[in-house]
Amino acid sequence: MGKTADQYLGIHPWKIIETGFHPDRSEVSESLFSLANEHQGVRGFFDEGYSGKSLTGVYLNGIYEERFMQGMAYKGISNRLAFMVNTVNWLHTRIEMEGERLDLAQSQFHAFRRALDFRAGELERGFVWETRSGKKLRLVFSRILSMKTKELACQKITLTPENFSGKISLTLGLDFSQPHRSFSENFWTCPRQESGAVLGISTSIGHHLFAGMRVEASGKRESIQGEKFVGEHLELDLVEGVSTDIERSVILYTPRDSKKPPDETWAAGMALLERSAHPYAKVLEQNTAYWTDFWAKSDILIDGDPETQQGIRFCIFQLQQTYRGAIQGSNIGAKGLTGEAYNGNAFWDTETYCLPFFLFSNPSAARSLLDFRYQTLAQAMRRAKDLDCRGACFPVATSDGTESCTLWQHASLQFQSTTGVAYAIWHYTHVSGDMVFLHERGAAMLIQICRFLVSRGQWSPGGKFGYYAVMGPDEFQMMVNNNAYTNYMAKRTLEYAASVLTDMDLVSLGCSKDELDEWQRMAREMIIPYDPETGIYEQHEGFFNLPHVDIDAIPVEDFPLYQHWSYDRIYRNDMIKQPDVLMFMFLYNGSFSRKEKLGNYDYYEPRCIHESSLSPSVHSILAAELGRRMEAFEFFRFATRIDLDNYNRNTDEGIHITSIAAAWMNIVYGFGGMRSDGDLLSFNPSIPAHWKSYCFQVVYRGSVIRLEVSAERAVVRVVEGSPVIIVFCGQEVEINQEGISAGISTPAI
Amino acid sequence: MGKTADQYLGIHPWKIIETGFHPDRSEVSESLFSLANEHQGVRGFFDEGYSGKSLTGVYLNGIYEERFMQGMAYKGISNRLAFMVNTVNWLHTRIEMEGERLDLAQSQFHAFRRALDFRAGELERGFVWETRSGKKLRLVFSRILSMKTKELACQKITLTPENFSGKISLTLGLDFSQPHRSFSENFWTCPRQESGAVLGISTSIGHHLFAGMRVEASGKRESIQGEKFVGEHLELDLVEGVSTDIERSVILYTPRDSKKPPDETWAAGMALLERSAHPYAKVLEQNTAYWTDFWAKSDILIDGDPETQQGIRFCIFQLQQTYRGAIQGSNIGAKGLTGEAYNGNAFWDTETYCLPFFLFSNPSAARSLLDFRYQTLAQAMRRAKDLDCRGACFPVATSDGTESCTLWQHASLQFQSTTGVAYAIWHYTHVSGDMVFLHERGAAMLIQICRFLVSRGQWSPGGKFGYYAVMGPDEFQMMVNNNAYTNYMAKRTLEYAASVLTDMDLVSLGCSKDELDEWQRMAREMIIPYDPETGIYEQHEGFFNLPHVDIDAIPVEDFPLYQHWSYDRIYRNDMIKQPDVLMFMFLYNGSFSRKEKLGNYDYYEPRCIHESSLSPSVHSILAAELGRRMEAFEFFRFATRIDLDNYNRNTDEGIHITSIAAAWMNIVYGFGGMRSDGDLLSFNPSIPAHWKSYCFQVVYRGSVIRLEVSAERAVVRVVEGSPVIIVFCGQEVEINQEGISAGISTPAI
Repeated sequence: MGKTADQYLGIHPWKIIETGFHPDRSEVSESLFSLANEHQGVRGFFDEGYSGKSLTGVYLNGIYEERFMQGMAYKGISNRLAFMVNTVNWLHTRIEMEGERLDLAQSQFHAFRRALDFRAGELERGFVWETRSGKKLRLVFSRILSMKTKELACQKITLTPENFSGKISLTLGLDFSQPHRSFSENFWTCPRQESGAVLGISTSIGHHLFAGMRVEASGKRESIQGEKFVGEHLELDLVEGVSTDIERSVILYTPRDSKKPPDETWAAGMALLERSAHPYAKVLEQNTAYWTDFWAKSDILIDGDPETQQGIRFCIFQLQQTYRGAIQGSNIGAKGLTGEAYNGNAFWDTETYCLPFFLFSNPSAARSLLDFRYQTLAQAMRRAKDLDCRGACFPVATSDGTESCTLWQHASLQFQSTTGVAYAIWHYTHVSGDMVFLHERGAAMLIQICRFLVSRGQWSPGGKFGYYAVMGPDEFQMMVNNNAYTNYMAKRTLEYAASVLTDMDLVSLGCSKDELDEWQRMAREMIIPYDPETGIYEQHEGFFNLPHVDIDAIPVEDFPLYQHWSYDRIYRNDMIKQPDVLMFMFLYNGSFSRKEKLGNYDYYEPRCIHESSLSPSVHSILAAELGRRMEAFEFFRFATRIDLDNYNRNTDEGIHITSIAAAWMNIVYGFGGMRSDGDLLSFNPSIPAHWKSYCFQVVYRGSVIRLEVSAERAVVRVVEGSPVIIVFCGQEVEINQEGISAGISTPAI
Repeated sequence: MGKTADQYLGIHPWKIIETGFHPDRSEVSESLFSLANEHQGVRGFFDEGYSGKSLTGVYLNGIYEERFMQGMAYKGISNRLAFMVNTVNWLHTRIEMEGERLDLAQSQFHAFRRALDFRAGELERGFVWETRSGKKLRLVFSRILSMKTKELACQKITLTPENFSGKISLTLGLDFSQPHRSFSENFWTCPRQESGAVLGISTSIGHHLFAGMRVEASGKRESIQGEKFVGEHLELDLVEGVSTDIERSVILYTPRDSKKPPDETWAAGMALLERSAHPYAKVLEQNTAYWTDFWAKSDILIDGDPETQQGIRFCIFQLQQTYRGAIQGSNIGAKGLTGEAYNGNAFWDTETYCLPFFLFSNPSAARSLLDFRYQTLAQAMRRAKDLDCRGACFPVATSDGTESCTLWQHASLQFQSTTGVAYAIWHYTHVSGDMVFLHERGAAMLIQICRFLVSRGQWSPGGKFGYYAVMGPDEFQMMVNNNAYTNYMAKRTLEYAASVLTDMDLVSLGCSKDELDEWQRMAREMIIPYDPETGIYEQHEGFFNLPHVDIDAIPVEDFPLYQHWSYDRIYRNDMIKQPDVLMFMFLYNGSFSRKEKLGNYDYYEPRCIHESSLSPSVHSILAAELGRRMEAFEFFRFATRIDLDNYNRNTDEGIHITSIAAAWMNIVYGFGGMRSDGDLLSFNPSIPAHWKSYCFQVVYRGSVIRLEVSAERAVVRVVEGSPVIIVFCGQEVEINQEGISAGISTPAI
């Protein structure tokens, strides 16, 4: 694997810190220093503007636009692209002294430092500006997004003249004129502007977005307006050695229903501004309380490895910022709210990679994710129809439940979103025991999913059932027949649905015993390509006959392959992009023997290029299980610091939010050895060679379980709630607050 | 097969005739009544304008525009679309009496008749217009494109008042404002306009097109100009019972090099107009002479079946109109010059389906087609590079040698254009004996083709050579491994090139013995999927395991499948679109035993849906060889009258020019049983049960050979040139002007 770390940031247990500004890393840092609060996400761009490379992105959950693509117009090919759109830059600040404008691409400066604190959700950036005439002004920009009042965000600017007294002018604005980068186009009209408030309406969907601000500052002030812009102009007198603060509170309000009159949005936004525009210090205090509380429950502590300690906390912080289930009807974009790549769309990543984090820390957020799929079941049914099928086909990529992937080879051939929803229904109800959800919503989804699977599948000449012309999770094999993952997941889905529905009132569900029988028959006859001699699952029919590529011989400069290889060249050898056979072996871990897992791991791991950021964690988890400690740790390091060290050379586009969810799994399922696919939750911990200890907590059936692992021993206990029965190091045990401990055997490799 | 004839036109041995106008067939008739002379093509639209459904198309060979498509931007995906563009309507006519405008969508009329005469290349259309006040005016519109002076075209309008005398006004124009239908956009600017002449320059490529006219008419005349329009307004006095003629000659001149100053184009166009604007009668006389001469050599006479007699002459007429090798650097669009479908681009059809017609009637035109590929070798080499390969990859679709297919699944996966060029080099030199071409041009192409084949192929784990991720001629199987056609054609290409080059001066060709050895090794190890037990070639690895579809059970309304089936659904069963295994068995007919051909025919024919218009002829030829007389005739009827009877329901878009080339093959190779892949040309004739006789002529090594076949006997003779040695009904014979005859055994089926 030609991927290497690009280390740059300082190591700190609770922060990421950038010392000195490096313009060539400008956009990578913008992504890393992103803030979010589920409602909005703000990249770590410079408040004062920057004429160098920068993506001044402010994204709101659920605010997207749509565009219909020209080109392929065959039936079933989605041509509607929905994309999260850049909104209003509420941090817009311009600073001038003696006619000289502050711009770090032009100005002289020193002592630059940028830090993001995971314990407060605060971004702070400071430096000393030296004007052409030799004046030195220290500036500190701070920002925070309220975790309490989602519409609220605050900015603070502290100015300290080091060697002069004098005038300074600032403009603070709310700027809707920002172009969306992907299309070099602005998607807003602003029908109403008043002093310090502006209403934006997005051009195609018509989303309403109210932005209003309150500025606290001394000096002369003047209100200004421009096209898609309102602001305030300030003239301040600075005194040498004395710090002056400027603060603003901002409300970004969007109604769930944009069909209402714009004036209602305006009124609601103004009321919220009146009520909630708190001082910076107060919001910081609230946020610190929120994060303190969160970390007490959700921290993962690693002793003996500061780099991965920082990495895993960064991952957890970013994931929690992006989604916590407080906003109904939203989902998790592949890049969260940190950039425009993947158009802000949600993928199968949500159920397959992100759900476990929420399931074991915040089950109601996990449920909200499933509710999103239930609420968009009608769109999935329309999509199935477009594909000449019955039932429901969940979208490969979506903002609102409608398929938004315009590449037919993905949208029409990949079904891991659909089987992923079924898996998540099973996983969620299995772990949480929420049978109400299963009956009220899950059953209806399962029926439609199975109907899709029944109608998309075909019978082979030999009388077996399978899926033809599909693309599995390994996107380096397009349009293959009987992809093992697709077929295995379909088989398990059909079996699960038939078994769970058999006790329900089928008539009221519009389903019948005959239908369940058909599902079971198809599951029974499902083709799962497999070589009984070697015990290796064949990724799809014909995979074993593909030309071999030595992936270690691929030059580093060929990555990412999609950019450097002819498109078709990727698809014609045995190189794989991400786990496919190994993926279902991870998801249904308990269904496979150690020997099977070992054989398949040893066959597929050397063929995997990890071009997907989702890949390393799954390999790490299996490597840990199989005692490949070095590999397990290397993959974990990659997964945990994928963005901090810019392994995939594309963090500038945004943070791999869904991949970093897998980093959480990597500790809990990997080193913690947790498995949630058996009847009981189980742990079988191991520890990387150079770690002193680590610990984490999971919520399980209402109790909080804490696992502490050192080089010699592992201890598991209930720290909150009733005793629970689990499997610990192979033994079924009931654990309580006293805990149970076991020795750790260091594996051979 | 759910396709049925939609019979409509009257039967005539030398004409197509439409009696009565049917608006719902307006565009189908426009296509059928197209005229062309290789330089330009004019659909059979109404001169006087028509507010109903119509495509007023005038297309010039080599005048195309380009557009760069948005969307997929991966490496090797062509995003440049080149398309033949609508040019100038030089037939523009508007007619008014008493303020009433003639428009067959609005006006009262009777006695409508439209006829296209294959012996003159003249289109004539007449009807009687009844005005609201009851005046009856008989109008006849005639048009002709000169086969002698390619830039010259003529229109004649004859007006005969049946029951009145009075004034009539006409406007005759040259109209560059016509929109191109595919993009609803006009692609011309007109920088210079004078009385009766206008210069158009196309907007993206900058092609120059001069249009000038001379009008012969009595009455008051006035020159008019508009935007992209020049014309003449006429006021005539008509006398009851007396016919008045209006004639115009038009020059459409385009320089090969549009980099010259526009004024040079103007001057050249004006000079041509001065010199060549002959009267209608003279041009008609020249054309009649041309076609008389042509038919004397190239007619196919069928006695006992007026429908296919008409059909085959229509095919030959259209093919000859479209291309005869008089214009260097041009090729044959899939729809010729009769419509905008396929963007006027040329495909593998040229070498594989059209070449034999020219090879056996006009070898220098066949050579010109190969010259086109030689002249565009540099573009093919660039394309190979885009695909991460060496050598030359000829485009799937092209106007100027550059790949113009923006569907990567075709452009990046189909190599039948490339192997088709190699096949055509072999076929042309083999039949014509033109070794100068082989040495001067063919060898260079063969080397680059082989280098592409070497670099695109891969070694299997079992040490065999093959092609992965390809699409064969059967476009219903996308991205398969080791498609039998692709591999077989590559094998034969490598073998042929290695053998023919071995005697040449390899050093001066930049090639080496080692390279030839490598080609031979790859050819030797080529994977050709084949079941030795049944003798069936497997269309690609895994084809035999695909789910079966009963194609006879597909409802007629599902056709064409691309429009009615979800795109992916087409690709996941054993239904095929057009011959693939049967195609290489046709091309290398002598390399397969009758038993092999029979087995494969019986396996693949029932799976073939003939969604490609290229399909029926090849089936017919093999069916004839295998003694399936009924099938052979049915497929022939389909192939010969594909447009006349609108079998594929899309003749409105234009005529299937390249498919109708296959109709010629269908008689000559099918019933005539000619084979040109052996050492000697051979004939093994049969005859459909209800035909009395048929005959045709072919040019072979400078001699003209005539084959006459009746129900009992076949006679072959040389009608022009020296005696030649051929194989006739299995016997090697020398034939001269006396001829040799043989009995015909009527096959069993």
